Amino acid sequence: MMDELKVFSGNAHKSLAEQIAKYLGIPLGRCEVFQFSNENTFVRILENVRQRDVFVVQPLSSPVNNNLVELLIMLDAFKRASAERITAVVPYYGYARTDKKDQPRVPITARLVADLLTVAGANRVLTVDLHAAQIQGFFNIPVDELTALYLLGDYFAQKTYKTEIVVVATDIGISKRARDLATRLNAPLAIMEKRRMGNKDQTETLNVIGDVEGKTAITVDDEIDTAGSLVGVVNTLVARGVTEVYSCCTHPILSGPAIQRIASCPLKELVVTDTVPVKDSKKLDKITVLPIAPLLGEAIHRIHTGLSIGAMFE
Amino acid sequence: MMDELKVFSGNAHKSLAEQIAKYLGIPLGRCEVFQFSNENTFVRILENVRQRDVFVVQPLSSPVNNNLVELLIMLDAFKRASAERITAVVPYYGYARTDKKDQPRVPITARLVADLLTVAGANRVLTVDLHAAQIQGFFNIPVDELTALYLLGDYFAQKTYKTEIVVVATDIGISKRARDLATRLNAPLAIMEKRRMGNKDQTETLNVIGDVEGKTAITVDDEIDTAGSLVGVVNTLVARGVTEVYSCCTHPILSGPAIQRIASCPLKELVVTDTVPVKDSKKLDKITVLPIAPLLGEAIHRIHTGLSIGAMFE
Amino acid sequence: MMDELKVFSGNAHKSLAEQIAKYLGIPLGRCEVFQFSNENTFVRILENVRQRDVFVVQPLSSPVNNNLVELLIMLDAFKRASAERITAVVPYYGYARTDKKDQPRVPITARLVADLLTVAGANRVLTVDLHAAQIQGFFNIPVDELTALYLLGDYFAQKTYKTEIVVVATDIGISKRARDLATRLNAPLAIMEKRRMGNKDQTETLNVIGDVEGKTAITVDDEIDTAGSLVGVVNTLVARGVTEVYSCCTHPILSGPAIQRIASCPLKELVVTDTVPVKDSKKLDKITVLPIAPLLGEAIHRIHTGLSIGAMFE
Amino acid sequence: MMDELKVFSGNAHKSLAEQIAKYLGIPLGRCEVFQFSNENTFVRILENVRQRDVFVVQPLSSPVNNNLVELLIMLDAFKRASAERITAVVPYYGYARTDKKDQPRVPITARLVADLLTVAGANRVLTVDLHAAQIQGFFNIPVDELTALYLLGDYFAQKTYKTEIVVVATDIGISKRARDLATRLNAPLAIMEKRRMGNKDQTETLNVIGDVEGKTAITVDDEIDTAGSLVGVVNTLVARGVTEVYSCCTHPILSGPAIQRIASCPLKELVVTDTVPVKDSKKLDKITVLPIAPLLGEAIHRIHTGLSIGAMFE
Amino acid sequence: MMDELKVFSGNAHKSLAEQIAKYLGIPLGRCEVFQFSNENTFVRILENVRQRDVFVVQPLSSPVNNNLVELLIMLDAFKRASAERITAVVPYYGYARTDKKDQPRVPITARLVADLLTVAGANRVLTVDLHAAQIQGFFNIPVDELTALYLLGDYFAQKTYKTEIVVVATDIGISKRARDLATRLNAPLAIMEKRRMGNKDQTETLNVIGDVEGKTAITVDDEIDTAGSLVGVVNTLVARGVTEVYSCCTHPILSGPAIQRIASCPLKELVVTDTVPVKDSKKLDKITVLPIAPLLGEAIHRIHTGLSIGAMFE
Amino acid sequence: MMDELKVFSGNAHKSLAEQIAKYLGIPLGRCEVFQFSNENTFVRILENVRQRDVFVVQPLSSPVNNNLVELLIMLDAFKRASAERITAVVPYYGYARTDKKDQPRVPITARLVADLLTVAGANRVLTVDLHAAQIQGFFNIPVDELTALYLLGDYFAQKTYKTEIVVVATDIGISKRARDLATRLNAPLAIMEKRRMGNKDQTETLNVIGDVEGKTAITVDDEIDTAGSLVGVVNTLVARGVTEVYSCCTHPILSGPAIQRIASCPLKELVVTDTVPVKDSKKLDKITVLPIAPLLGEAIHRIHTGLSIGAMFE
Repeated sequence: MMDELKVFSGNAHKSLAEQIAKYLGIPLGRCEVFQFSNENTFVRILENVRQRDVFVVQPLSSPVNNNLVELLIMLDAFKRASAERITAVVPYYGYARTDKKDQPRVPITARLVADLLTVAGANRVLTVDLHAAQIQGFFNIPVDELTALYLLGDYFAQKTYKTEIVVVATDIGISKRARDLATRLNAPLAIMEKRRMGNKDQTETLNVIGDVEGKTAITVDDEIDTAGSLVGVVNTLVARGVTEVYSCCTHPILSGPAIQRIASCPLKELVVTDTVPVKDSKKLDKITVLPIAPLLGEAIHRIHTGLSIGAMFE
Repeated sequence: MMDELKVFSGNAHKSLAEQIAKYLGIPLGRCEVFQFSNENTFVRILENVRQRDVFVVQPLSSPVNNNLVELLIMLDAFKRASAERITAVVPYYGYARTDKKDQPRVPITARLVADLLTVAGANRVLTVDLHAAQIQGFFNIPVDELTALYLLGDYFAQKTYKTEIVVVATDIGISKRARDLATRLNAPLAIMEKRRMGNKDQTETLNVIGDVEGKTAITVDDEIDTAGSLVGVVNTLVARGVTEVYSCCTHPILSGPAIQRIASCPLKELVVTDTVPVKDSKKLDKITVLPIAPLLGEAIHRIHTGLSIGAMFE
Repeated sequence: MMDELKVFSGNAHKSLAEQIAKYLGIPLGRCEVFQFSNENTFVRILENVRQRDVFVVQPLSSPVNNNLVELLIMLDAFKRASAERITAVVPYYGYARTDKKDQPRVPITARLVADLLTVAGANRVLTVDLHAAQIQGFFNIPVDELTALYLLGDYFAQKTYKTEIVVVATDIGISKRARDLATRLNAPLAIMEKRRMGNKDQTETLNVIGDVEGKTAITVDDEIDTAGSLVGVVNTLVARGVTEVYSCCTHPILSGPAIQRIASCPLKELVVTDTVPVKDSKKLDKITVLPIAPLLGEAIHRIHTGLSIGAMFE
Repeated sequence: MMDELKVFSGNAHKSLAEQIAKYLGIPLGRCEVFQFSNENTFVRILENVRQRDVFVVQPLSSPVNNNLVELLIMLDAFKRASAERITAVVPYYGYARTDKKDQPRVPITARLVADLLTVAGANRVLTVDLHAAQIQGFFNIPVDELTALYLLGDYFAQKTYKTEIVVVATDIGISKRARDLATRLNAPLAIMEKRRMGNKDQTETLNVIGDVEGKTAITVDDEIDTAGSLVGVVNTLVARGVTEVYSCCTHPILSGPAIQRIASCPLKELVVTDTVPVKDSKKLDKITVLPIAPLLGEAIHRIHTGLSIGAMFE
Repeated sequence: MMDELKVFSGNAHKSLAEQIAKYLGIPLGRCEVFQFSNENTFVRILENVRQRDVFVVQPLSSPVNNNLVELLIMLDAFKRASAERITAVVPYYGYARTDKKDQPRVPITARLVADLLTVAGANRVLTVDLHAAQIQGFFNIPVDELTALYLLGDYFAQKTYKTEIVVVATDIGISKRARDLATRLNAPLAIMEKRRMGNKDQTETLNVIGDVEGKTAITVDDEIDTAGSLVGVVNTLVARGVTEVYSCCTHPILSGPAIQRIASCPLKELVVTDTVPVKDSKKLDKITVLPIAPLLGEAIHRIHTGLSIGAMFE
Repeated sequence: MMDELKVFSGNAHKSLAEQIAKYLGIPLGRCEVFQFSNENTFVRILENVRQRDVFVVQPLSSPVNNNLVELLIMLDAFKRASAERITAVVPYYGYARTDKKDQPRVPITARLVADLLTVAGANRVLTVDLHAAQIQGFFNIPVDELTALYLLGDYFAQKTYKTEIVVVATDIGISKRARDLATRLNAPLAIMEKRRMGNKDQTETLNVIGDVEGKTAITVDDEIDTAGSLVGVVNTLVARGVTEVYSCCTHPILSGPAIQRIASCPLKELVVTDTVPVKDSKKLDKITVLPIAPLLGEAIHRIHTGLSIGAMFE
């Protein structure tokens, strides 16, 4: 076993870090992370971390670039403060959608972020539901990717529905994850396909591939941002004769008009986790937030003591 | 523009390298690549390459590990021979399916191969249709990924069919590429889903998501290996009332029983490229091989002279 | 000489990049740099940059972390787009004041930023008046540090003053730069020293070391942030019998109450450059902005063509 | 002392790994290492290795490239599975003869292999009798090179011979190792020199430098491959009046016609170790195989517990 | 806590290493460090260091380049001998004054030395009073910089003086450190400024900025080399009516004419530490040497056991 | 072809650099390389080197460590001065004999030096007759190793001898190089073997393996240091009835008693090159110095223009 375990938090999601520390039965490590008047982020670790096993909790949630730079600076500070091992706990890995060059002369920011974390001092990464599992391979340090799928699946499994359920991938790209949930719920799968029509790519149609009529749909996403796509999916499903629509995602970004859109569309319930902070103002009645801290806390305990993470999902 | 362009070949696919050199109007670079009696691969470059712009053509086709090690040793030899810039031309990037940890304690070999190529001396990579586009991000050197989709799409576009066509993804994982072909052919999309049933994962069923009955199906794959999945897909589609089944893939691995399976199943035509060598014994009448050399040759010309690769696909 | 020269700009200071391009007689390179709704910065380079000699202009000015991340992502995009050489033109190097561990367990962010720029893809750096010249050594890629001292010195040299001038370092830390200006203006030097008094560090006194009474003071700083220190210095100098106070700095951050403080204090004139954008609302009559673009443009021309940068300051 | 010791084996030489585990009194670690139908090697570690001290046993014996790639992939898997320390146990380091550029434009594959092992994840290397000791310096991770010389020397020391013995280096390149054995056996040294004659390098003569007539010769080699050179040496020695010829080497590659050649030539006995597998079909009566497992097992025990390896050879 | 602590010494300053070992209550590690007749430095570690926590004591004092290369070779030897962690204890970090490019085409040797130490095998650095604190940032491994300021300050605090004291920075560049001592002694600060006059830079004047007349001056320096500057300062201060001059520095290089100059100038006392060896022939009555070993010994104890270094200076 | 070629020299062997520049028809580049009073080596490059193709000539001859550090600092200066490509021209690669761990806990300094050169900024290395060719593999940058063997061989080939010649390796370790000379001179080979006898390794005997009686011996060495071994060899050969003894080596270190020993022993002639400086006081009548500058100059010309180096030795 490693030397003493310590958990620290940046400003992205302090309450999550506190719940994790509580799960582990230790106090949250003391540090200051703030900006000077010239906007320069500064970090001061307020307790000795020499040869300690340090975990830094910081999702790359809004404000994204501030939180990323904050994390990088914290990693540098812990490295220079002689921590024995530093694990970046990034429950939501931002920039994950920029993971390939699908048009000329664009960045692969998800790889860049992996390199930034590594060069800043991370020895390992702990994260939840990456947009693409290949992002693990952007790192050459060990990555433990947890999944909220069991959490979400168990929640849906214990509900009762008016009609038979069908799991719906809201996009071609999410179809694998949807299939995993469908398998877990022993339900069939349908897939939404967005297709640009005509010249100049101006209009899009949304096709439903598979049978949904007369069924209860559960849509799956890794993250929901402005909820524009989600609302389009819900409306299309309803138009196709779906009884009720439930949705779930791991990372509730919910930016801009998201809350208003969700509130006003015929969605029955949206189930999410709190890998990113969900402000009280966003907590609609129809939004259910499942706590992710126990999953992360258990994983940290296992990393620290050398127990298997895989065994958590058997 | 760079200094003189030179193209060399390992043993994996010499005829492809020769066609590329022919396209470029230059002789193929002279080198020996062979094994000693103790199976140690050895390389001897037989012409001066100082400050030359060198391209090494070697798909990671069968024998995979030999071809990989051969390529690595060639890269080392060119590096130590003072080549100005070395581009690994890997039309088929083997190990691409091991691109994530989807179970505990497995490697991410596609990333490992990227690191091996880089440490051996590659300054750039040129490849065709990666299994997952994220593999580009496994590299920190520039990667140019070409696609055979236009080649395959144009081929299918100029054929006539008995009934309306539908593009079929043979697996959830290939659905994005299938969608791209469907868009190009202005056809609807259907997706095959393999699902394990019962306990102990012993039996699988193959679901067709989307409408295929009475249509002509064109299935899409990035590579076809033993053709076991393909034959299952073809049979299922036929059972679902499909008129005729065409198939295509970029990389025709066609190992083991593949040829026999393809020959005896009700597949109308299989269209492939020659990113990997297709032995004469495998050239069934129903298999059409489209040459990939012009695409690679043009890309090499553009890399060498600083022209845009993106413009090839506009 | 290198292949074609191209200058691109992030969002930090587009007008500066345009002036530089104008100096060089070339159009500014076309690219999009923007944020998606989830705050993920994205970059799309809109022209071919293969084997080009690329300069990316981006001071680390407000919003600091956004501009830093924008720059990193642009570097990654240019690297993956096969630029021959990428120079990060960072007229104002933010985080420069966090350049050492002067208390336990703090970061050295100025070094971290150097590593981030390098890992993202910068091959060289061009900057102006680093807070400490040692920051050059945080890089292992070539750094060209220009100085605005001659620009500022020449400006002050051609003015006339009521009394003899004395150059005043506003802080112990800036005394070397102040000495250089004093030498250039052939004037004596005085130094301000801030000293914390009594227990608990609550009150500070500001000592003037050197003779200033009856003279015209010209204070020197590398950057002015909230102007709190500056105003304290001006008031102290006036209280010590200084005739008039002029001030100068290279980087006019001017955050928070800075403009109001400068407007209302007995400062005669503040002379700055535009290494960071100075909004119109900040352009008080008593603030003079000297354009830095000719200096940067000339340096870029010399880097591109292999001429000496040192010769610019002989 | 490190955390728990675990020993794993690839497919190159399982029986050796088992003997080592037996020496250490622990079960061999469980893992699967196999090829898919497309020849892609895959690895699945079947027990938790977090923070364990892992040793992977894999000589680079036939099939060389497969065994090399297997080892690299295993190292990657252990690294990503969070092993605390990974030692590549490579009893026979293949490619060792390609350790220099002795003609233009050839690789230095022995260095390349060192880099491949390191980039794949090895933290240390344990090996036996490198072709050239300088190969240690190809690594920047600690290398422990054991020698079988004492084992072989002790074996020859306890035999009785008809005439005085002389140790014979079979080639100029092996003369240092031969000298070490000669010293250990308190015997004189002779050296064979191969010389190409005439134009076009077509014929070779084999000179014996030193006195061998009427003596019993013991030839030394690090490895014996096709035995072509060995047979030439034996015949030459016999022609020079040697009483009897014994031979030894550490690594019995014995490829191609080796066994037939050894069987039919006037060699009295060949003494080898089992750093590489010796198939039963190769076990001639005149071949003696000394087990290397105790040496490797003891070294692993000492590496794991922090005892001196040097002390094993005092 | 780490495995067993071991302290080794090169030839630069053996007595200091012995005092440190004594402070720690352990014997000094046994090793040979010597030159062959061809001046090649060689190192032989005479005891097992596997998995030990190794500290190598070697200031970069005269002969500077020999001591530097000796240290590098020792680090390589410890790395290859499988030490668990190697701390380079460099009480005097030579080349620290070459820490920036202040003229065209010069090296930044202080950064180069940081890279050399790292590439040779140092995992951490322990040092005292760097010329510029920014040098910490030249490393990407943890650096613990101790200060002798408290030691020197305490010494001066307990003396009595004829007149009020003023702390004098002997140069603009040292003014920060002088201010720290002034604060500690609750004394005012004055600063010496060297200014080149006239054309061709031939003559220099030495200005005193601040009030010194009738006071007792205590000058501060990080190192004193030939004492040329010091003597100039002392004479100037005396000419300005200073009562008595005391001086101090951390690193007493005292090369060339230093001792003679100090002996014959009106300096009352020079207080130094022994971070570099002070030969008996240099120990003038007016030179007081404070031992640095307790500070280094305590820091090593704390690094080894994971205690805070910062707490030593609270 | 690269941009303008420039050749610079450190202090190790200026006359060689001047001869090389003369061969190339260009002036030697201007730079200052000197030590400050505190022994800190400093470098100032006195002409613009941006994007130039720079060659730095510096053998690692006496004073070895000073010359090594000088070279490293020069490389750093050229790198930071934006040279396009930097070739370290190291005609004599010191520390080459420490190229393996042949006893516990010693360094591999020849590898360390390779890493130091690389980290300091060398892009390539040009050298002559490495002690072991494997040292090429200590680098991951291109190394061009020239050989003086043809130069020495041609010299001996045009002499006439009293009796038949035999080439004698002065040590087991040099036997390969001796064989190459023997082949070139079409002469037989003999080998000297040093053997320690009795307990405590106190006395050594020198065996001659092969026939030398009545012949003229030409001994071969890569370097001659104190000439102790050489004199032993010469005396032994004479005692064995050799007619006359000639000797040659590439690198005439000739330290300590070497000249006196050579003068007084029955050696007929010693032929060397000037890869290291040979002081006039060492130029005995029986020592012949062949100039190495033409070989190095031609190689530099070929590296600069992209011509084959291998072709120089065909």
